[in-house]
Amino acid sequence: MEYPPELSKEEEKYLLDNLKDWSIAHGLAVRPAPTFIQPSQDPSGVLASTAPVTLFPSLFPRSCFEEGLAIQNAYNELYSAIARDEKWLQSIVEELVDIDDFVAKLWQTHLAVKKEGYVQDLSLGLFRSDYMVHKDPSQSNPAPGLKQVEFNTIASSFGGLSSQVSALHKYLLNIDAYPSSSSSLIKAEALRQSKSASSLAKGLAVAHRAYGASKTSRPLCVLFVVQDPERNVFDQRHLEYALLEENGVRSFRLPFGETLFHTTLDADRTLVYTPPNSPSTPYEVTTVYFRAGYSPEDYPKEQDWTARLHLEKSRAIKCPSILTHLAGCKKVQQVLATPHSPHLKRFLPDAEVAAQVLATFAPIYPLDSSEAGKEARSLAADPASASRYVLKPQREGGGNNIYRKAIPPFLEKLPETHWPAYILMEMIEPPPLKNAILRNGELQRGGVICELGVYGVCLWRDGSGAEKKGEILESWEAGYLLRTKGDQSEEGGVAAGFGAVDSCCLVDG
Amino acid sequence: MEYPPELSKEEEKYLLDNLKDWSIAHGLAVRPAPTFIQPSQDPSGVLASTAPVTLFPSLFPRSCFEEGLAIQNAYNELYSAIARDEKWLQSIVEELVDIDDFVAKLWQTHLAVKKEGYVQDLSLGLFRSDYMVHKDPSQSNPAPGLKQVEFNTIASSFGGLSSQVSALHKYLLNIDAYPSSSSSLIKAEALRQSKSASSLAKGLAVAHRAYGASKTSRPLCVLFVVQDPERNVFDQRHLEYALLEENGVRSFRLPFGETLFHTTLDADRTLVYTPPNSPSTPYEVTTVYFRAGYSPEDYPKEQDWTARLHLEKSRAIKCPSILTHLAGCKKVQQVLATPHSPHLKRFLPDAEVAAQVLATFAPIYPLDSSEAGKEARSLAADPASASRYVLKPQREGGGNNIYRKAIPPFLEKLPETHWPAYILMEMIEPPPLKNAILRNGELQRGGVICELGVYGVCLWRDGSGAEKKGEILESWEAGYLLRTKGDQSEEGGVAAGFGAVDSCCLVDG
Repeated sequence: MEYPPELSKEEEKYLLDNLKDWSIAHGLAVRPAPTFIQPSQDPSGVLASTAPVTLFPSLFPRSCFEEGLAIQNAYNELYSAIARDEKWLQSIVEELVDIDDFVAKLWQTHLAVKKEGYVQDLSLGLFRSDYMVHKDPSQSNPAPGLKQVEFNTIASSFGGLSSQVSALHKYLLNIDAYPSSSSSLIKAEALRQSKSASSLAKGLAVAHRAYGASKTSRPLCVLFVVQDPERNVFDQRHLEYALLEENGVRSFRLPFGETLFHTTLDADRTLVYTPPNSPSTPYEVTTVYFRAGYSPEDYPKEQDWTARLHLEKSRAIKCPSILTHLAGCKKVQQVLATPHSPHLKRFLPDAEVAAQVLATFAPIYPLDSSEAGKEARSLAADPASASRYVLKPQREGGGNNIYRKAIPPFLEKLPETHWPAYILMEMIEPPPLKNAILRNGELQRGGVICELGVYGVCLWRDGSGAEKKGEILESWEAGYLLRTKGDQSEEGGVAAGFGAVDSCCLVDG
Repeated sequence: MEYPPELSKEEEKYLLDNLKDWSIAHGLAVRPAPTFIQPSQDPSGVLASTAPVTLFPSLFPRSCFEEGLAIQNAYNELYSAIARDEKWLQSIVEELVDIDDFVAKLWQTHLAVKKEGYVQDLSLGLFRSDYMVHKDPSQSNPAPGLKQVEFNTIASSFGGLSSQVSALHKYLLNIDAYPSSSSSLIKAEALRQSKSASSLAKGLAVAHRAYGASKTSRPLCVLFVVQDPERNVFDQRHLEYALLEENGVRSFRLPFGETLFHTTLDADRTLVYTPPNSPSTPYEVTTVYFRAGYSPEDYPKEQDWTARLHLEKSRAIKCPSILTHLAGCKKVQQVLATPHSPHLKRFLPDAEVAAQVLATFAPIYPLDSSEAGKEARSLAADPASASRYVLKPQREGGGNNIYRKAIPPFLEKLPETHWPAYILMEMIEPPPLKNAILRNGELQRGGVICELGVYGVCLWRDGSGAEKKGEILESWEAGYLLRTKGDQSEEGGVAAGFGAVDSCCLVDG
């Protein structure tokens, strides 16, 4: 069956009219891009537009969806264990400091706090593990598997909008905006409501309560540390509203660059936020929720690093701490996912749990002189096997990847001493899918790639004493995100790389 | 105490940032005016902006607010009785047909249906009675009273946004966006949540159920007959969503001008709506909810009158029927509000109820040769008494009113034979108030005038037989609207006439 279904002109009008009104009425919105509406036209910022969304929920294998949700607790355990293992993280960071200034700066900031001593042993993670569906192209009728793209430990976004887009698709189904020809696929039983907004807010509330009372009887708050301006503000606002309405917890938004103007540390390093609008009522910050600070661009001035240090050394619970932030490095993923890696069992002592997590890794090899490296070199040099891989430089950032059959000739020209600067990753081969995306008022159709993100909330206590084992206080799977973008092919009408929020229409097999 | 409170720059930024994000996140929005964003910039219509709102809830006398709500059931009774009294309405219409083509056309449409016979004896009213607070300027410390501005029997708007704006003001209070200096006035106990969206939707649902089952087993729906384009679409959408989510009732939006393309009448005059997006699934319309058709501009072609006739003669419940629509004529209000009018007791036999309603009328006199007319002539001719009145031509539309002391010299120059073309209305003297309005991104401050609208839902059965008494099946007060606009004074910064949605902050005395 063709999916998504072809729409007549009248069907498309009905679907779009209802989609556009519903999205604004329910805050499934973004501030308009400057390429769409020039800021000078709306200097006070009252305009918004429908967030980029898919018209249809994308088809997603039921088994993969359930696997992703079921495994989130194991990922919470894994990444909280990594974040607690400073020594191990140090070994990772040491491989990166010379090539990655940002990681080096984060590590120095951690060391500076460590020197003074951390005064908060609770850490909060609002994680998101991102996957794609993989179908092994070497098999004739392969079962779909879930392969991890990356694991986010800081500023995991779209939890607010994700709840809204799954509600949108359900609404469109309920008002018969999907033609009846598609009713065997798009049906209530197949759609999945994401609880992410509510569940992530609950995570912040749990940390807020675990912080305890103010020693100086100040009112307590959660601090959203944000970028400014922020086009994706409604995504964050939905968490704030759920935090207030469902949990009774106050929060404030603080642009990261203004941290030092509006916050101070008491002698015992209690973090105090003084709202500029009511300077006579300082708040004690229980939890710092970073929706900024994850990218080098967030630190244009040296003072921004002082701000990060200031927050890190405070007594507030950090979401995330710097060690948790560093646990999200791509390098960590690589080290865990290298075949025969001994590292996974270090953090997941239960062999069954470790095996489940391992099954979601796409193999990643170093191109060095280790055993795994030697294996990788032979895979990469042979055009037959190389066609299942991508060669990536260690540095972040796209545009430098070498794909498939281009790998052997590329390596032939590269002196072997430079090979270790690259890693070899098995390609994730998503099944061909189509959808239509509404973005800045333009409708784009064509081949798409879907990424499933599964949110996880984890609150833990760092270990102390010789054992340093730590303790997980709360851990749950916190809903999902489906993000869909145009595929790389020239044929697809959907512009590659431009994402939209989406929801899952589960299919068997 | 100064109200609203003066805000520091930081207080204003905090309030506006939170107001602008909350409003979009909760659909307190409108499509942007073409003067703000040219339609060519957003051809597919994905942009929205914060609806015009007040920054603060306006102060409103508690006694007046409670009186307005308490009296709504009496108004439901009054107007449903008027709508059932065709003979009486005919006497009103006869005075208007020569000067008002629109009323004449409505009446002819009614007569055409009457000739064939009405086949639906249920009628639904979603009413809104609009008031201003009146303080008699001739008294030294007058008690505030509630005086009716007008009574709306068709397309009573803003019920959707009103629920949202009262929630907005409550949110702003909860996040301390109102300075503590104003806390003796703006407090949770003083704010009033409007239940209008939910309550009006319930009214439509009650009519929908009262209609009964389809004789031909078609699916049932409510039809929103709308203008196209409609900038205030989210106001209407909130009712649609509440109708679906809280009552499980499907509805469709039909531009009034397309009525004849998409609806048909069965032999028994069942109204059938065929959604253009799914022509194979016709719906039986239980209730026609007019959000269009109330203004001559909605009838640019003769065919539009055919459409109104077509809907009126159908078996669907009309909200409103043409007789109910006509009951909302300003002339009806005038006739009821003329001192010593015998009409009120015709419709409200309970003297106490009639007296309560009468107390909300601002006296309106004809300038004819009746007893009341003679009284009016002497009031209008004397500069002392004339200063409490406004002279209005019978025709609708502003710009032709003669105010206060200008009345006697105006009448002196006017031949007495022309005097009956005017009516004399006692001025409503609202107390001086101030507020700030955000509109199209611009902040306006100054003197304002507030209008309280009280919604009423009424479902009744027309009478039959000799008695024709009819029967009210459902009647309730359905929440409120506060609409606030700049006053007429030159000093006020708020542009006169431009309204904003607002909510009540109740004050005693």
